[in-house]
Amino acid sequence: MATTKTPVDNGVNVQALLGAREALKKTPEGAQFQWRATCSWVYGTHSRTTTKKYFGLGQEQQHKTEFSFDTDHPEVFASEDKGATPVELVLAGLAGCLTAGVASVAQMREIQLRSVTATLEAGMDILGILGADSDVRNGFDGIKVTYRIDADATPAEIQALVAQSQKRSAVYDIITNPTNVTVEVV
Amino acid sequence: MATTKTPVDNGVNVQALLGAREALKKTPEGAQFQWRATCSWVYGTHSRTTTKKYFGLGQEQQHKTEFSFDTDHPEVFASEDKGATPVELVLAGLAGCLTAGVASVAQMREIQLRSVTATLEAGMDILGILGADSDVRNGFDGIKVTYRIDADATPAEIQALVAQSQKRSAVYDIITNPTNVTVEVV
Repeated sequence: MATTKTPVDNGVNVQALLGAREALKKTPEGAQFQWRATCSWVYGTHSRTTTKKYFGLGQEQQHKTEFSFDTDHPEVFASEDKGATPVELVLAGLAGCLTAGVASVAQMREIQLRSVTATLEAGMDILGILGADSDVRNGFDGIKVTYRIDADATPAEIQALVAQSQKRSAVYDIITNPTNVTVEVV
Repeated sequence: MATTKTPVDNGVNVQALLGAREALKKTPEGAQFQWRATCSWVYGTHSRTTTKKYFGLGQEQQHKTEFSFDTDHPEVFASEDKGATPVELVLAGLAGCLTAGVASVAQMREIQLRSVTATLEAGMDILGILGADSDVRNGFDGIKVTYRIDADATPAEIQALVAQSQKRSAVYDIITNPTNVTVEVV
C-alpha cells in the first residue's frame, strides 16, 4: 500500500532563497545591503530606537511597519527599567538569527520542526562598565545558547541543523568576530 | 548680583552609580551579572525572544515587566516581515547603550542635554549569509553611528561625551571585540 508523505513545512520558502542565491551570484551588486536604525534619547538612560528603511537589491526598501525598541537600565542601576537593557537586545538578536537559521536549514533538509526554544545566558562583570577595574572588559565574558528542539529527525541531524545555522548566522559572526564601529558627532 | 544656576538634570542618578562603584570594588562578587533571554520559534524565520530575569548583586533579579522582541526576515528574503531583522536588534542595542552612556557622562560632567539622536548604518554583503561566496563574512562590514546632540556645552565637550560613552559601552565592546559563544542542543 502506497503511503503519502506530508510535505515538510517550516514556513521557509527555500526555493526563493536558492533562486536569490543564484541570481545574486550573477549580479553581486544587488547583495549589498545597508541596515539602519534611528535612536532618540528619552530621559535618563532610557532611549528609543526605530527601524524601518533599509537598502538592498539595488534600491531603497522598507519594512511593512516600523519596529520600535525601548532600552533602559534596570532599577539596580538606579534607573527606571523602562525597557530591556541594551545587552539583552544583543541576546535577542542572536537568538532570533540562530533560530531563523535552524528553521531555514531544517526546511532545506526536509526536517519537520515541531518546536524550537533557546535559552541564552551571558555573564558580565559590571566592574568594567562602572569604570572600577580597567582589567575587566565592558562586554559579556561569553554567551551560552542552549537549544531544545522537537523535530522529525535524529539527535545527530538536529545537532547538524544548529551547527549549520551558526555557520551562516550574521549575528553570531558579529558577536564572535570583531566589527569596526565608527562613531561621529555632527 | 548673584545668579542661581539651574541644576543639571539628565535623569541619571550619578550619586547612586558612584556609590555602587565604590561598594562593588569592596565586594566584587556582587558585580558578577548574568543576563538571560528565552527564544521561541513561531513559524518560518519568525521567532520571539523575551527577557525578564537576570542575576546580579549576588541574587536573582527581575525587570518590572517582561520585554518581548519579535524578529523575522523581510519580504525581500521571501519571509513575512513580522519583526525587525536580528541584525537590526544589534543596532538598537548599540544605539541604546551608547546613548545611555552619553546621558550618564553628561550628568557626571554637569552638562545639560536637550536632545540626542543617533542614526546607525551598517553594510552587509548578503552573499555571505546566502552561502554564495565563502570569502564574504556573514555579519556587517562595519557600523557607522552619527550623533546629533543639542546640549549646554562646546562642540569639543560634546565630542568628549561621546568618546567617553564608547569607552564604557558594553555593546560597543561586544561588537568591536570577539566574544565567545557556545551553542549546544540538549
